[in-house]
Amino acid sequence: MQGIGASPGIAVGKVLIKKDKKVEIDYENITDSAVEKEIAKLHSALEKAKKSLKELKESTAEKMGKEKAEIFGAHLMILDDPEVIPAFENKIKEEKLNAAAAVKEVVDEYAAMFSAMEDEYLKERGADIKDVGMRVIKILLGVEDIAEKMEEEVVIIAEDLTPSDTAQLDTEKVLAFLTKDGSRTSHTAIMARTLGIPAVVGLGEELLTAAENDEEVIVDGSSGKVYFSPDKATKEEYQAKLEEYKTEQKRLEFYKDKKAQTKDGVDIEVVGNMGNLNDIAPILEKGGEGVGLFRTEFLYMDRSELPTEEEQFEVYKKAAETMGDRPVVIRTLDVGGDKDLPYLDFPKEMNPFLGYRAIRICLERDDIFKPQLRALLRASAFGNLKIMFPMIATMDELLAAKAKVAEVKAELESEDKDYNKDLEIGMMIEIPAAVMTADQLAKEVDFFSIGTNDLIQYTVAVDRMNEKIAQMHNPYHPAVLRMVKKTIESAHQENIWVGMCGEAAGNELLLPFLLGAGLDEFSMSAVSILKIKELLSQWTISEAAQKAEKVLELKSVDEVKDYLKSIQK
Amino acid sequence: MQGIGASPGIAVGKVLIKKDKKVEIDYENITDSAVEKEIAKLHSALEKAKKSLKELKESTAEKMGKEKAEIFGAHLMILDDPEVIPAFENKIKEEKLNAAAAVKEVVDEYAAMFSAMEDEYLKERGADIKDVGMRVIKILLGVEDIAEKMEEEVVIIAEDLTPSDTAQLDTEKVLAFLTKDGSRTSHTAIMARTLGIPAVVGLGEELLTAAENDEEVIVDGSSGKVYFSPDKATKEEYQAKLEEYKTEQKRLEFYKDKKAQTKDGVDIEVVGNMGNLNDIAPILEKGGEGVGLFRTEFLYMDRSELPTEEEQFEVYKKAAETMGDRPVVIRTLDVGGDKDLPYLDFPKEMNPFLGYRAIRICLERDDIFKPQLRALLRASAFGNLKIMFPMIATMDELLAAKAKVAEVKAELESEDKDYNKDLEIGMMIEIPAAVMTADQLAKEVDFFSIGTNDLIQYTVAVDRMNEKIAQMHNPYHPAVLRMVKKTIESAHQENIWVGMCGEAAGNELLLPFLLGAGLDEFSMSAVSILKIKELLSQWTISEAAQKAEKVLELKSVDEVKDYLKSIQK
Repeated sequence: MQGIGASPGIAVGKVLIKKDKKVEIDYENITDSAVEKEIAKLHSALEKAKKSLKELKESTAEKMGKEKAEIFGAHLMILDDPEVIPAFENKIKEEKLNAAAAVKEVVDEYAAMFSAMEDEYLKERGADIKDVGMRVIKILLGVEDIAEKMEEEVVIIAEDLTPSDTAQLDTEKVLAFLTKDGSRTSHTAIMARTLGIPAVVGLGEELLTAAENDEEVIVDGSSGKVYFSPDKATKEEYQAKLEEYKTEQKRLEFYKDKKAQTKDGVDIEVVGNMGNLNDIAPILEKGGEGVGLFRTEFLYMDRSELPTEEEQFEVYKKAAETMGDRPVVIRTLDVGGDKDLPYLDFPKEMNPFLGYRAIRICLERDDIFKPQLRALLRASAFGNLKIMFPMIATMDELLAAKAKVAEVKAELESEDKDYNKDLEIGMMIEIPAAVMTADQLAKEVDFFSIGTNDLIQYTVAVDRMNEKIAQMHNPYHPAVLRMVKKTIESAHQENIWVGMCGEAAGNELLLPFLLGAGLDEFSMSAVSILKIKELLSQWTISEAAQKAEKVLELKSVDEVKDYLKSIQK
Repeated sequence: MQGIGASPGIAVGKVLIKKDKKVEIDYENITDSAVEKEIAKLHSALEKAKKSLKELKESTAEKMGKEKAEIFGAHLMILDDPEVIPAFENKIKEEKLNAAAAVKEVVDEYAAMFSAMEDEYLKERGADIKDVGMRVIKILLGVEDIAEKMEEEVVIIAEDLTPSDTAQLDTEKVLAFLTKDGSRTSHTAIMARTLGIPAVVGLGEELLTAAENDEEVIVDGSSGKVYFSPDKATKEEYQAKLEEYKTEQKRLEFYKDKKAQTKDGVDIEVVGNMGNLNDIAPILEKGGEGVGLFRTEFLYMDRSELPTEEEQFEVYKKAAETMGDRPVVIRTLDVGGDKDLPYLDFPKEMNPFLGYRAIRICLERDDIFKPQLRALLRASAFGNLKIMFPMIATMDELLAAKAKVAEVKAELESEDKDYNKDLEIGMMIEIPAAVMTADQLAKEVDFFSIGTNDLIQYTVAVDRMNEKIAQMHNPYHPAVLRMVKKTIESAHQENIWVGMCGEAAGNELLLPFLLGAGLDEFSMSAVSILKIKELLSQWTISEAAQKAEKVLELKSVDEVKDYLKSIQK
């Protein structure tokens, strides 16, 4: 089968299909004599559920950070609620239901009550209650959850993986992910790259019936190829590739402690993208020279209210201290679009990607923007932080955002609080309007960082999540490459540096173009850092610049791709 | 009150609030003796409803074309359905309901049945049945409909106006429109400009309580100002302005039969935008030199299936013949986005403006695209038609669309059917990717036409229908103006002409910029044509070019607007 190679690497292993097992509950009345037995079963199941939630909470905190783990804390609190357990028991005693049916009835009642509420946050709690209930019911009915079944390393097959699915997986036992849905920029893909696990996504409906549990499978996360029950020749071929891949990983180790440099000795910055503090370790481990994009959204998610200045300060300070002299570019809040915060209660939009989001929200909401800026500025005293604004479309927005920073600086000074007075301020280039006026904007910032995912989306007028046209969302589009070049030219004219923090920065084929166009900083998933460092060492600036000139004359995605393939080293 | 001036002109008159009157139906049982009376009432109301539907159908056909009138034909058919009247009667006889309650019960049952159907088209029929039912019920209850109440000329106040609301209005008696919702590009605004009626939209919630029926009101459709119960001074001021406006209209008459020319005698094309055949008369009446944008969507709307090649051919031929030597630029089907065709059953999208629409659909659907191209080519033998493709984002799409035209030409030749062998083929420039690659695309077409509404939307990443950020959708954004300039330069390099068919082409303030940037053709609502012809006659090319250069250096919407105001003649 052929899908979208979403996270590189090769895996040879056995299939595990992640499917929500059908749960069949028996609603027939139990006899009076069975009541005590069902109550005992209930309590035993509740204990087991709590134990598994505690374990999940701890393992998630370790793997993905405390914030992501909080969801399971909330689930635990539901089971400790003094009203809940008597409610379960009463259903057994009075309505003569078995334990599973009793739990189902109670959680459905609670969930319906919460779902009927106006408040988006409380509505969400309805879903949590259902989740917890299902966990208890599954234990009662002996329906296994995936986490318990992974005794050996497996290749997971699923429709798609949500962040909470991921949390429940023992990722150390996952050799690869295969999903029916998704694109290179879907959650599964990004998560797989963060964890360094091969993944092929967008395999379509047939994936779900293509294999059985324990069937042998080969996954090539670079080419997007998947072989079920491979023949001997294929298996040998991929075993060899796997060896080769491992050898390559070894070879790339060489670049870990080397500065990223071109063949002719020009320093280029190769840095990592991060979503939370736990992403720092892999970036350093792979030789990242800093952080080119620290997405701060995680601080705002899975919560019931805005994070305080102190909470944010602690996180930014930790990032600054851990990275030491290395730069950490922190992007201010980028919500809206596909990233909703229930407690902010924004209106539903017909085209959220063309809507009220990111800096557009922050500039209207001091209660959101100022605590973040204060936290960022205070943390800047502890390392090499830089601030970056997302979704700037007009000069007015940029000036207004800078004015807010100045306001906060004045406040901190009057409070005698420390901050780095030379803190660099930059902006994302991800809207065509910003590219067209980059010459003007460049006079007002210290750096640009090109966000290719959104830039492609707006330049080509294609929602990258829309499967019907996803193939048009393509970094090789000549218009996109010309925008990159125009941005860099405008920036260098004003002597400021330009980074790229979209997916394209870690794209091996595009590297000579980006280097030749003059890109100063490449920011990517940790997993791509070493390879990009190696590739940079194989090109001289002038050689790459010559190729980039040639690329800018090409007329179509295919022409660009073919040419880039022809010059690949 | 201050709203958005959506259609220019001044009106002084009396308010008529268009509000759906609350319909209160009495469900109490009637006595046996009342049954015959209610049945008689029912039949009388049905006859009245049929009469009003027939009138509406005729007047709509006259005002807006046969296609728009078809909806009322469908409504008539419902009342003639042999099952429907006995169903009404039975409810009266057997359930002892009065006529209004009986009609309500029956239509609700039918509507629920249709709404439950899978097929989008049949679902819509549920809404039609409800509409018809409400018409009968209103007659039974003596609740007046707006159309009957307009004995004198009025200023209509409404939340918003849908195409079917408009159809029911006696537009000759409408002095102006005021709406709570809407923007310069909403249906009400476009319709008002087409009809040449002043309109102020987006007045907000307070509009609905700001006035009472028959209250005096002054509407300034240019500035967006509205005065309720104006004092004597204001009234006199506006009476004077109204006189002035009428004098200006008289003065502009001078340009009706004059060629559009700059002060230094350079010919510029000033043409009209049209949505259906009935728009041709106003364009000619206002001195339009052709049609720069013929939107063909109306042929596909309010129907249950695709229009045939013959149906389309007749319409395009009529347009070609009516316009004679004057050019008529026909845009191929541009559906998707906010324009849905129920019978095509496209998937729901999260961001329809970044979705599967226009040429993206046509290139995959020969059954849609080829009949239209065949009809267009055949009609080209009867006048000066040109074909234009919407939403081109890549060279591949343009070449594929041209290949389809070549395929159809070959078919017609083998069938010995006539067409204009020199037919010009052009494309819309409305996606940033097209601007960035305009130098390449220009080699493949005979002309460009800039669609500013979408171009602004994608360039600034703003959904123009989203009220929260609508103020960012602005033709004065420096990035948008630079894109216009870049497009024209690329086109002239290849010796092809460039038009503009978005709202901005009729914008008086922008005129010196567009002229100076080199725009060859201005296509707009009929109502703006004379004024733009006059303004063109006041500028020399070199003077305008010098101003345009200056505009391109400005940094913000406000700077651009202030400058353009300062040079206004």
